[in-house]
Amino acid sequence: VAGEDAPVAVTAAEARALIRAGRWTGLTETLAQQSVHLAPVAVPSEWALPLLQFCVRNPIAAPVIEVLGPGEWMTDLAPDGDLRTDVPRWQVWEAGVLAAEVTDLRPHWRDDLVTVLLGTSHLFAGPLKTAGISAETVDNPRPAIYRTARPTRQAGPLAGPLFVTVKFARPAEVATIVRVTARFPAGHGAPVHVGDPALIGLDGEQPAFGAPLEVPDGTVPLFWACGYTVLEALRAARLPWFACHAPGCAFIVDLPPEQFEVV
Amino acid sequence: VAGEDAPVAVTAAEARALIRAGRWTGLTETLAQQSVHLAPVAVPSEWALPLLQFCVRNPIAAPVIEVLGPGEWMTDLAPDGDLRTDVPRWQVWEAGVLAAEVTDLRPHWRDDLVTVLLGTSHLFAGPLKTAGISAETVDNPRPAIYRTARPTRQAGPLAGPLFVTVKFARPAEVATIVRVTARFPAGHGAPVHVGDPALIGLDGEQPAFGAPLEVPDGTVPLFWACGYTVLEALRAARLPWFACHAPGCAFIVDLPPEQFEVV
Repeated sequence: VAGEDAPVAVTAAEARALIRAGRWTGLTETLAQQSVHLAPVAVPSEWALPLLQFCVRNPIAAPVIEVLGPGEWMTDLAPDGDLRTDVPRWQVWEAGVLAAEVTDLRPHWRDDLVTVLLGTSHLFAGPLKTAGISAETVDNPRPAIYRTARPTRQAGPLAGPLFVTVKFARPAEVATIVRVTARFPAGHGAPVHVGDPALIGLDGEQPAFGAPLEVPDGTVPLFWACGYTVLEALRAARLPWFACHAPGCAFIVDLPPEQFEVV
Repeated sequence: VAGEDAPVAVTAAEARALIRAGRWTGLTETLAQQSVHLAPVAVPSEWALPLLQFCVRNPIAAPVIEVLGPGEWMTDLAPDGDLRTDVPRWQVWEAGVLAAEVTDLRPHWRDDLVTVLLGTSHLFAGPLKTAGISAETVDNPRPAIYRTARPTRQAGPLAGPLFVTVKFARPAEVATIVRVTARFPAGHGAPVHVGDPALIGLDGEQPAFGAPLEVPDGTVPLFWACGYTVLEALRAARLPWFACHAPGCAFIVDLPPEQFEVV
């Protein structure tokens, strides 16, 4: 879905309705930009405690905004919403293997599922634009996720490396980007690393998702902790079953990003 | 324990050893001031999910720093520590009634307990002093906790009003106090209310704990969300069993407060 005929969703409720009707199955970043976009992860209830422990121990990668369940698919953050139908694409993972990618999770739903909603970096997209950061930086044309050499704090069976996203900034923009993003810890906060990718183990490595890392001339790479860290930990633990959003396909709720601004 | 003969504990490990040896059973605020002080709450594992949901839904009152269990009483945040012996005084609550106050929780320990460690406002005590805030303000001589008329966000059986602590500041200090404390969301962050106590329902009411509210002449009262909110919700739900620290008796861990500074 793109171009001049693409449907428009300004409010979170409109975005959810569009997605629920099957009229939007792509990335959500352009929808309801003044609303909070969250990343859902649903696990069987016996995995809820390790998952929450892993998130609490790695809060920059996994900022927990809401926890639903067992079996709940509605939240008062999205009054008319249904988590199962209001995410453009869900992935179902079984024993570490992608078993299905679906636009409707209802046929896969189970009454014992606990769903964790994680904050995303969409939280500071608006504030970065307001701060005058160039669209080339903010709207990275090559979204990608990279595996670093940094460990996370383990929680029982859940462990693994930190994954990061990247933006490329002009040197004069770096400080502003750090200061603006730091105000939104619920959206991964300040970068975990600014500069030489090799120092966090990104030395010519292929991405986990998206485009290979190439730092454009005259720019500084800024790396943010990414919620993908949680999904990889769940896959590596070979969880019998879990569901998560396809990359970039968020659940949009009726909250303004400003609510999560800390200072 | 007080006065010139009072034992001194500068590091977190020293403070835990002092408490474990039974040589300190009082408030922890003067111990290991450069370390993070946490408020432990232990519940049977079937209550872990509602407790964590309540905390996530009320993050200013209940900032979750760590989750242990089931049955765990050690954390790598305090390598030599034992939660059960390293808190000056534990309270054991049964069906909403105080069943015991003990210096050693081991006889009461159960293998199914999940312990949540909450951040406390001790986190910004040092930064406030560094910012030049007067000791009269920072070291409130009349510590107290008050029940407000503000509701919390419910999580299953856990609900109830927001409880707050108070500091009294000179008008010229208010902005500095707000700015400094806002940088520590893990320590309850910025005040939830500044000014007239009646507007949050504190109109001549007795405190839940400590001294009655009397705003000194020439000062402005600042109110912070308090972890007591969680304990009251657990008591109101008449949990069959839970344990928590006695007011002001924290578990001190090997982390510097600066680690939790956001901006």
